[in-house]
Amino acid sequence: MNRDDPEGAIAEAAKTYSNWGRWGEDDVLGTLNFLTEAKRREGAALVRRGVSFSLSQRFDMNGPQKGWRRRTNPVHTMLDTGTDAALGNQGFPHGIGGADDVIAMPLQCSTQWDGLGHIFDHGRAWNGRDAATTVTSDGDLVTGIEHMAPYVAGRGVLLDVGRVVGDDDGTKELPDGFAVTEEHLTATAAAHGVSVGRGDIVVVRTGQLARVRREGWGDYAGGPAPGLSFTTAGWLHRTEIAAIATDTWGFEVRPNEFEGAFQPLHQVVIPNMGLLIGEMWDLDALAEDCAADGVYEFWLTAAPLPITGAVGSPVNPVAVK
Amino acid sequence: MNRDDPEGAIAEAAKTYSNWGRWGEDDVLGTLNFLTEAKRREGAALVRRGVSFSLSQRFDMNGPQKGWRRRTNPVHTMLDTGTDAALGNQGFPHGIGGADDVIAMPLQCSTQWDGLGHIFDHGRAWNGRDAATTVTSDGDLVTGIEHMAPYVAGRGVLLDVGRVVGDDDGTKELPDGFAVTEEHLTATAAAHGVSVGRGDIVVVRTGQLARVRREGWGDYAGGPAPGLSFTTAGWLHRTEIAAIATDTWGFEVRPNEFEGAFQPLHQVVIPNMGLLIGEMWDLDALAEDCAADGVYEFWLTAAPLPITGAVGSPVNPVAVK
Amino acid sequence: MNRDDPEGAIAEAAKTYSNWGRWGEDDVLGTLNFLTEAKRREGAALVRRGVSFSLSQRFDMNGPQKGWRRRTNPVHTMLDTGTDAALGNQGFPHGIGGADDVIAMPLQCSTQWDGLGHIFDHGRAWNGRDAATTVTSDGDLVTGIEHMAPYVAGRGVLLDVGRVVGDDDGTKELPDGFAVTEEHLTATAAAHGVSVGRGDIVVVRTGQLARVRREGWGDYAGGPAPGLSFTTAGWLHRTEIAAIATDTWGFEVRPNEFEGAFQPLHQVVIPNMGLLIGEMWDLDALAEDCAADGVYEFWLTAAPLPITGAVGSPVNPVAVK
Amino acid sequence: MNRDDPEGAIAEAAKTYSNWGRWGEDDVLGTLNFLTEAKRREGAALVRRGVSFSLSQRFDMNGPQKGWRRRTNPVHTMLDTGTDAALGNQGFPHGIGGADDVIAMPLQCSTQWDGLGHIFDHGRAWNGRDAATTVTSDGDLVTGIEHMAPYVAGRGVLLDVGRVVGDDDGTKELPDGFAVTEEHLTATAAAHGVSVGRGDIVVVRTGQLARVRREGWGDYAGGPAPGLSFTTAGWLHRTEIAAIATDTWGFEVRPNEFEGAFQPLHQVVIPNMGLLIGEMWDLDALAEDCAADGVYEFWLTAAPLPITGAVGSPVNPVAVK
Repeated sequence: MNRDDPEGAIAEAAKTYSNWGRWGEDDVLGTLNFLTEAKRREGAALVRRGVSFSLSQRFDMNGPQKGWRRRTNPVHTMLDTGTDAALGNQGFPHGIGGADDVIAMPLQCSTQWDGLGHIFDHGRAWNGRDAATTVTSDGDLVTGIEHMAPYVAGRGVLLDVGRVVGDDDGTKELPDGFAVTEEHLTATAAAHGVSVGRGDIVVVRTGQLARVRREGWGDYAGGPAPGLSFTTAGWLHRTEIAAIATDTWGFEVRPNEFEGAFQPLHQVVIPNMGLLIGEMWDLDALAEDCAADGVYEFWLTAAPLPITGAVGSPVNPVAVK
Repeated sequence: MNRDDPEGAIAEAAKTYSNWGRWGEDDVLGTLNFLTEAKRREGAALVRRGVSFSLSQRFDMNGPQKGWRRRTNPVHTMLDTGTDAALGNQGFPHGIGGADDVIAMPLQCSTQWDGLGHIFDHGRAWNGRDAATTVTSDGDLVTGIEHMAPYVAGRGVLLDVGRVVGDDDGTKELPDGFAVTEEHLTATAAAHGVSVGRGDIVVVRTGQLARVRREGWGDYAGGPAPGLSFTTAGWLHRTEIAAIATDTWGFEVRPNEFEGAFQPLHQVVIPNMGLLIGEMWDLDALAEDCAADGVYEFWLTAAPLPITGAVGSPVNPVAVK
Repeated sequence: MNRDDPEGAIAEAAKTYSNWGRWGEDDVLGTLNFLTEAKRREGAALVRRGVSFSLSQRFDMNGPQKGWRRRTNPVHTMLDTGTDAALGNQGFPHGIGGADDVIAMPLQCSTQWDGLGHIFDHGRAWNGRDAATTVTSDGDLVTGIEHMAPYVAGRGVLLDVGRVVGDDDGTKELPDGFAVTEEHLTATAAAHGVSVGRGDIVVVRTGQLARVRREGWGDYAGGPAPGLSFTTAGWLHRTEIAAIATDTWGFEVRPNEFEGAFQPLHQVVIPNMGLLIGEMWDLDALAEDCAADGVYEFWLTAAPLPITGAVGSPVNPVAVK
Repeated sequence: MNRDDPEGAIAEAAKTYSNWGRWGEDDVLGTLNFLTEAKRREGAALVRRGVSFSLSQRFDMNGPQKGWRRRTNPVHTMLDTGTDAALGNQGFPHGIGGADDVIAMPLQCSTQWDGLGHIFDHGRAWNGRDAATTVTSDGDLVTGIEHMAPYVAGRGVLLDVGRVVGDDDGTKELPDGFAVTEEHLTATAAAHGVSVGRGDIVVVRTGQLARVRREGWGDYAGGPAPGLSFTTAGWLHRTEIAAIATDTWGFEVRPNEFEGAFQPLHQVVIPNMGLLIGEMWDLDALAEDCAADGVYEFWLTAAPLPITGAVGSPVNPVAVK
């Protein structure tokens, strides 16, 4: 890996790990195709205690966004309130009152899935499509996230790399700039006694979210962070996982591992591999539970809102053990 | 039931079916308390084939909203596009391009959960709280839907009343204004060979959504519709279900069964019973499958977005059989 | 004018009436360049009585938009209310309370200016620029409406064509589909005893807004309407007016005068002529006054909000006589 | 003025300077009633050169808002772009292409007017109305800013206090926390050779905006700032000005002059005096011109958008000299 040649490294990885055509030229699901009905049966069998966890951050103005690329925190406002209802301002009969609300938010503002139309490689979208006609001002006309709506439910695996690898200083958190390699991932799985394979939804905890919760957002949205090394592209491809998510803003390590680069691993895995990526997930409560009972696999439903033509979606992933 | 006295009927039902205090004075979950870990284990065991269904309508401008009470359809816009990426307008290095997007929408615009702060009875919110200080311009300060984030996953039961009761004319749809009674519900469950009980999430298909899809939205958002009769309040309370959802705008039959009334069943079941209600769910694909295999129970995850202080949430419910 | 060849007619008019290069290659103002300081002095001298008129419709949900091209009516919501202030929900000291609000709206939803980046001709924007790099997802990078912020104040002239030409049936309104020609415009000016010339802001009343107010919006937003004939392009160019606005959705007559055409006059006058166009102005109160005192010229300020990169702006034009 | 008793000081000033009932019990204009037709004639006569100035900041994401009370900077997004038009993605005939846009913004985010429903005093709105029923979740039902739409055009006067009083260090800017008193205002007017009186729109330049432009926004939105002293309430009342605006976020000096206070002068002048207040105006270009030609009076149009029920409005004030 030549630090000075991101474009070359990306081109090579893109070629090596491409899944273009693998599921036909009309495919709109990418690696989600790996998540089969058999895998769902396997996942459901992991519900042993019946305990459930939300892996979502809360959506509100106390989030990490600072306006970069017009990404704000969610703005939630009320159309009607209990205050007005109680004062009789609403004009409804027989003592009924109501409250309604509205939200305005970037789909990438908090816990989310990146859709297949979120990233392009030299003007090419997933499966080799022309980005220029696939994702226009009208949204993603082909691979909008609505197509994934029924499918994101299966076996989840937590790799708490923060806990296993970052344990030296007692924080169970990886420092910013820490590149998680294939070796870290496999060592973590081994430490957990859990396997990762075809069709799994893998969630990787770095611990950064726990740290910024304690210390303040700082540059959580776009600044230095632990995350997956560019070199994990092969592992991501070879394992044939259906999806992967982290507790960080950008999934991959930042600063990126090349000079003058911007999210090079995204450029490989989204448009070329068709991998479903989740970001800003909150894995802390689940991780505590997994550490306690030693079970790092579970049933996971992480259903994107079927916003027509969206290149991402807020999501409240729910894990059940 | 005196058609001319909605306020009296509501008051009586509210008193009879109240759950105030049942789960302590700090409760923020209402009937979702019935959804226990045991129930989740029972639900997960229903995953036999591994096939999954989204029960959500798509979120876009082609929805039913016409502006009543400032409820619009979702407005989805792009912050960046593939078109710009392909033309090199984005200024990113090494050939990476990206698309981002934004949404502005009422939380009650399409497939949704009504939060516990959505409806009040004479200035009282769920558990007897003062509506005026519970749901202000800052949102629901106590029972915001974020509190439900981890829990809405369990055993789902489809009652396809449209198919069972509405079958006379071959449409498998109930006509607008049709009041679904307890007898209809129990007869449907019997016809399906399915039980309904404590902690279940019940989804009731009237067939109205199928009809408006065929014929145009018309007044789907607020006009006449089939739906639950006011008289089902007892059944909703006695069965101790965790939640219920329909394929209609408003859950209960419209026109409402009293003169000059507005959503009287809501006034009983949300603030008094603490019942979680879903609306505008799309049950057609699931219903087809259930009719085909004769199995009307399944694993259901319907996780609201944890929007802090929200009185409702868009949701993509996913059923797995 | 060959009804079957809009493209040919547009090409010819575009060439004949082009102002490309007239104000230098860096120009961002178009015909607003005609509005000189001398013209402002002339306009200010028209303030004789001191009476002022708003030429804006109100911005609210009771507007004409129905969702075409994601154009909604404005959604105005409150962040804080007097209700909450009165109930002491706000936490401010010494009895102060406050109300704040938010708006979400298309910039083309109601009374507005079309910016120079609003319309393109075969991929060319005003002054011959490449549309593809001028107006991207980041907005109009060159001719954003913010550049016009200080300048739209000068002599206004009302041409009440509805009153002069449409008077036959007593309504003082032109019927939908009525094409206003140069002859109508000059006859109206003559009837009013007013001149139109270089640097003027001309407002043309068709009466359609009065009609839809009486009869309901119907298809005001995009349907049949009276408006300027395609043949007025020469007059618009020759008079060297700074801007023109109408009381209709789309400025030009609809249905358009060619088979299968869409807003052909826009295609000539915005990207080729650089003409500033206003739409959905409310001219009725001003027109009543002008009819009463016989004075059809006035001081007019119609300042767009300087929204950076916007291709249009809501505006509250104020006329003072 | 007892620094420890803001509530007492406010109550006394509110009583002394109240205009309740002055223009009848149905009044919705407050001090804007002072701006008469005669005053407009006087103002128009000030157009001598014909040069015009925008007094508005630009509306974009590079603004000062940081999320306090859900106030964000304006989010402007495109519905259609020139990029898509150039690539033929739009489906329009004969080579026409278009761009549309949308904005979501707090009405108090940048250059603005505070409406009469923006501030309350112990649950009372302007003219003694009950805040609880005047400004609800449906907006300001009585004194919405739409009522002011035709009227805000008249004689403007610049008081460049920064230049006159702040000149000691050469910056022509007042330091943060500097309380502008009646003496400063009258001395500035005297230095400018300009009078201030009934019906005028007074714009006060402190220089803070120039400073934050140079040094970065910092806490411009809500932090320390120069501004009007609480003690100017009498001057504001006695002069019978129609409106006043500053180049700061909050009009009055911050930190406020009482212990534990929040915008006490607002509490006096908006609900009690009915004074129209403008904030975040950009006075620098105008001030340069006034310093150059020594003329500090001009024609000013500052027309709020008639957003129905709004308690404020973005505005692009245009001064013409």
